[in-house]
Amino acid sequence: MTDRTADQLRDVLDGRWIELRRKARTELPAELMLAPAGLTTEEHRAHTTDALRKIADLGFGRVGFPAEFGGELDYAASCVLFEMQAFGDLSLLVKTGVQFGLFGGAVARLGTRRHHAAYLEDIMTGRLLGSFAMTEVGHGSNVQALETTATYDDSTREIIIDTPTESGVKTYIGNAARDARLAVVFAQLVTGAGRHGVHAVLVPVRDDTGKPLPGVTIGDNGAKGGLPGVDNGTFAFDKVRVPKDNLLGAFGDIDDDGAYVSDIDNPNRRFFTMLGTLVRGRVCVGGGSGAAAKKALAIALRYGTTRRQFAAAEDQDEIVVLDYLAHQRKLLPRLAKSIALSFAQNAVTERLQELQGGPAHAERDVEGQRELESRVAGLKAVTTWHALDTIQACREACGGAGYMAENQLTQMRADVDVFTTFEGDNTVLLQLAAKGLLTDYQAMWGDLDVPGMVGKVAGQVGERIVERTAGRAGIQRLVDAATGRDDDSATDSLGWAASMFEQRADHVLETLGSRLRKATKDNAFELFNNAQDHVLLAARTHIDRCVLESAVEALDGMPDGAAKSLLERTLILYALSSIEQDKAWFLEHGRITTARSRAVTASVNDLCQELRGQVSTLVDALGVPEELITAPIVR
Amino acid sequence: MTDRTADQLRDVLDGRWIELRRKARTELPAELMLAPAGLTTEEHRAHTTDALRKIADLGFGRVGFPAEFGGELDYAASCVLFEMQAFGDLSLLVKTGVQFGLFGGAVARLGTRRHHAAYLEDIMTGRLLGSFAMTEVGHGSNVQALETTATYDDSTREIIIDTPTESGVKTYIGNAARDARLAVVFAQLVTGAGRHGVHAVLVPVRDDTGKPLPGVTIGDNGAKGGLPGVDNGTFAFDKVRVPKDNLLGAFGDIDDDGAYVSDIDNPNRRFFTMLGTLVRGRVCVGGGSGAAAKKALAIALRYGTTRRQFAAAEDQDEIVVLDYLAHQRKLLPRLAKSIALSFAQNAVTERLQELQGGPAHAERDVEGQRELESRVAGLKAVTTWHALDTIQACREACGGAGYMAENQLTQMRADVDVFTTFEGDNTVLLQLAAKGLLTDYQAMWGDLDVPGMVGKVAGQVGERIVERTAGRAGIQRLVDAATGRDDDSATDSLGWAASMFEQRADHVLETLGSRLRKATKDNAFELFNNAQDHVLLAARTHIDRCVLESAVEALDGMPDGAAKSLLERTLILYALSSIEQDKAWFLEHGRITTARSRAVTASVNDLCQELRGQVSTLVDALGVPEELITAPIVR
Repeated sequence: MTDRTADQLRDVLDGRWIELRRKARTELPAELMLAPAGLTTEEHRAHTTDALRKIADLGFGRVGFPAEFGGELDYAASCVLFEMQAFGDLSLLVKTGVQFGLFGGAVARLGTRRHHAAYLEDIMTGRLLGSFAMTEVGHGSNVQALETTATYDDSTREIIIDTPTESGVKTYIGNAARDARLAVVFAQLVTGAGRHGVHAVLVPVRDDTGKPLPGVTIGDNGAKGGLPGVDNGTFAFDKVRVPKDNLLGAFGDIDDDGAYVSDIDNPNRRFFTMLGTLVRGRVCVGGGSGAAAKKALAIALRYGTTRRQFAAAEDQDEIVVLDYLAHQRKLLPRLAKSIALSFAQNAVTERLQELQGGPAHAERDVEGQRELESRVAGLKAVTTWHALDTIQACREACGGAGYMAENQLTQMRADVDVFTTFEGDNTVLLQLAAKGLLTDYQAMWGDLDVPGMVGKVAGQVGERIVERTAGRAGIQRLVDAATGRDDDSATDSLGWAASMFEQRADHVLETLGSRLRKATKDNAFELFNNAQDHVLLAARTHIDRCVLESAVEALDGMPDGAAKSLLERTLILYALSSIEQDKAWFLEHGRITTARSRAVTASVNDLCQELRGQVSTLVDALGVPEELITAPIVR
Repeated sequence: MTDRTADQLRDVLDGRWIELRRKARTELPAELMLAPAGLTTEEHRAHTTDALRKIADLGFGRVGFPAEFGGELDYAASCVLFEMQAFGDLSLLVKTGVQFGLFGGAVARLGTRRHHAAYLEDIMTGRLLGSFAMTEVGHGSNVQALETTATYDDSTREIIIDTPTESGVKTYIGNAARDARLAVVFAQLVTGAGRHGVHAVLVPVRDDTGKPLPGVTIGDNGAKGGLPGVDNGTFAFDKVRVPKDNLLGAFGDIDDDGAYVSDIDNPNRRFFTMLGTLVRGRVCVGGGSGAAAKKALAIALRYGTTRRQFAAAEDQDEIVVLDYLAHQRKLLPRLAKSIALSFAQNAVTERLQELQGGPAHAERDVEGQRELESRVAGLKAVTTWHALDTIQACREACGGAGYMAENQLTQMRADVDVFTTFEGDNTVLLQLAAKGLLTDYQAMWGDLDVPGMVGKVAGQVGERIVERTAGRAGIQRLVDAATGRDDDSATDSLGWAASMFEQRADHVLETLGSRLRKATKDNAFELFNNAQDHVLLAARTHIDRCVLESAVEALDGMPDGAAKSLLERTLILYALSSIEQDKAWFLEHGRITTARSRAVTASVNDLCQELRGQVSTLVDALGVPEELITAPIVR
């Protein structure tokens, strides 16, 4: 195994953005990307703000904004950059995510040309720092229930922003406690004609000296479980007036006559269309957490190849801890999953670019957008939980040394924690993912007998198949090749594993569909609630399938050789570990025999021992910049 | 359900120490037990030292020391007190654990009367702060490989303490960086007659003004993943001389003629006997982490009964989040496990008192001691992982609010993290637990044909049975009652669950025994290494069995009524959740049918919904002092 293998594998993992990733690896300075040790919260916040501005000075703030207004590269590139920044201090990552992604992204996607012209240049350069004020004390996942009001006053052509209750106070808002001058405030829009649902309004919150503006009460959320460099805070508004032009009106605006106008008539659909523009945030959070997991694995695996403990016999050297099966099982399946997830991450990033890469107002592929949202929701949940679990396993694998802050693992763990909550609570997101699948399912099979639906549904089915062709073809080929084989052979083959993934995802979804189809108006909540574990399983197994699909597509594109073989073995370890976790399901549903079930565990063990020998190549392939690994245990 | 039910249940959970627990709940002042918010590391350390001394002033430092030297209550009581202190700031917990448990405990258990007379009073009052210096940079789990030397110089009747290499530097030592004046240093004892293995020596490390003494280099481990109030640091010794009387010589001493003397001839057995006195530390760490998990559950469950999100229909109130099955499944099985683990914790604490409660030199029940060590090792691993997992689940269940430091969950999570590592790495401890079982197994069945062994083994078997009678009888009765029942009935019965627990633990252990019996000198490492996952399973399933055994014993002792019924249902949820996790094993080994396997999941769901209605009673029964729950989300 030569370095060439690691290079090849890294290129495959880098996907379509080899150049951008290389640039981020070499041009983002380590002294900005890493926070100095021992900062107080206030010092960390100041460092982070400073680093954000310097990164903007290097031009990285322009990635993902429209070229017309000084932006660079494409929309998806900003997700890739976010991933690469996640190898550094995650406070800085989240701070830049708030500034360029959430705040800047909302102005770009929900605003119109006048907003772009007025604000984007200052946002991209970091001269204008802002907040994305959505969450309220009483309203997290259920955004539709926000209480803040934005009431249009036609007499002055102003919008009045107001916080009616304590539970309507904006909270956990990044950039709020210290830096924001302007906030994108999500509020219930009300005009003379009535209520129009949640819209976003630009509200100045501080003057140039940093003092809160009249009517704006700003609080500090104070210490958190992590992300000390991010100044999360609260906003309460007491009848604050802003010009009506401050409404970010891409999907619903107030015209010169004071009338509410929107291209989307259905308020529900309008709301979800607006939220849909925020899918990029979830792509970023998934990618960022995945990158953090890779860095943790790089540290723990390198340490594991040097740390020794206990000798097999008295006259021998102590054994390298990664030679223990228990240590391998702690780290190698997680390494395999990290690698597999990379391909799914690349796939949703590409799809994001295809669907949302054009101007915000371009004709929308509604079905494609819904499918992307569903997949991104699920992938974000799966990846952030994987990251949390992996960084913790890495911490434990490094023992007491892993608990020392200087070895970088504990801060990453503390920071990534909230990735499972922000941009959507993971449990809620998995339900969202499943809901998207069920709509597919119903569209395909449930309502075929309804007159008038057939044509529409047939169209969607066609589209779905086209969309998935590349990845599906690879999986289908594998599954076809595996079918008909002796049940007792080749547990450790990608074909068999793929066929198991397919069967699992299909069956779980089909049975969930039949179960939920029994819903009536009266029993709907109870029926759905009783099926929640089934719903979560459907989402998870679907995402597993998508991950393997994307990974196999990448594998198929590789030339034969050492790198391809190594990736294949790694993907088999990923797939078998997942099957091992769900063994009970496969047995319950007669998809595997008890003999094969035991063989799966034996194969996972064998693969761990096999890949142990190629750990340094795999770690190199993860592409974590050397200067960002400062942990003394591996220097 | 009345409060009386909660009171009754709390009393049962409090076990034999109702009075001590009540005293701790009411007399440990909240202003000492909780650290003020927003402290710097140095301030937190100072607060912690100060709080430790004040707790000592209240007399709590005397718990667990011999009455002859001013101690109070019994040896086990110190574990119970440790548990109760874990409802407060865990930095203070660990600091007091280092001072009174590790440092003071080593002086008491490894030292002789002259050490007791000289030091215990000052240790109990907190006037003399000290360290327990075992771990070295290169040597964590493998204590026998420590490099620090303690060389006896007969010419001056001194012992020379020396750190020969970088990897021999003591590290992660609590109390070292700031406070310790005296350290119990574990080192390889060498006399003119040769090497005698690891022994403990008292070494003064700082003068009265806090300056390191000549030859002692003290370092600061700096920032950690948690426990900011504990001053972990390093010690390196450059030929530091101490009087020979500083050797803690209970198990091996240097006599007036300069000769090494010990009651225990075999150096290996001597080493493990010395370490065995440290089993209390593991009892404490398990109990403390279990208590922290209870506090987290109290916070998350209360929040879950008030927080609402999403309405079932437009005109309805939003639903209380704990009414969602997914939320129940996140918290209630963990609540049930927390309750079940309490009984196992009480049982090992009682057993510790029986075996080690007398004078340190009393005749030792070697077999009983070994069994206790094995069980404590396994229980510590299971409980600390449970605590880590539970606090994290609680954090996520509280969403963004859970991530705010003021809501107490993130600091607990960060602090408890290292409980999985200190006092023994969990993976290593589970292997230790399994090893203990295998020795039992081999003693009982493996060597019956060896002449001369029969008598000894028969004796041990008798002893084992006597030891376990109380708990075993309850389980056996349940299992007997369950046997012969229709396989399709009563999944949610304790009898069926107990019989599954028994079958699982027995079979896993038996097959492990047969597998490892094939070991030869040449293949031993490979054979043992390949079986590591089997070894870990054996330990875990054994501990599950022990937990249920202890819990059933407590249940059997209760009068019929609401409290008993509630506890029974809770234990069934614990047991079925464990069976659900291991479903694949039961199916693979033909212990359950696929129909029953599905029924287990259905029963877990039903039990979650059933116990949802009794959450406030169960939370009250956990006995977390109200003043220590300051989280604004539940005030």
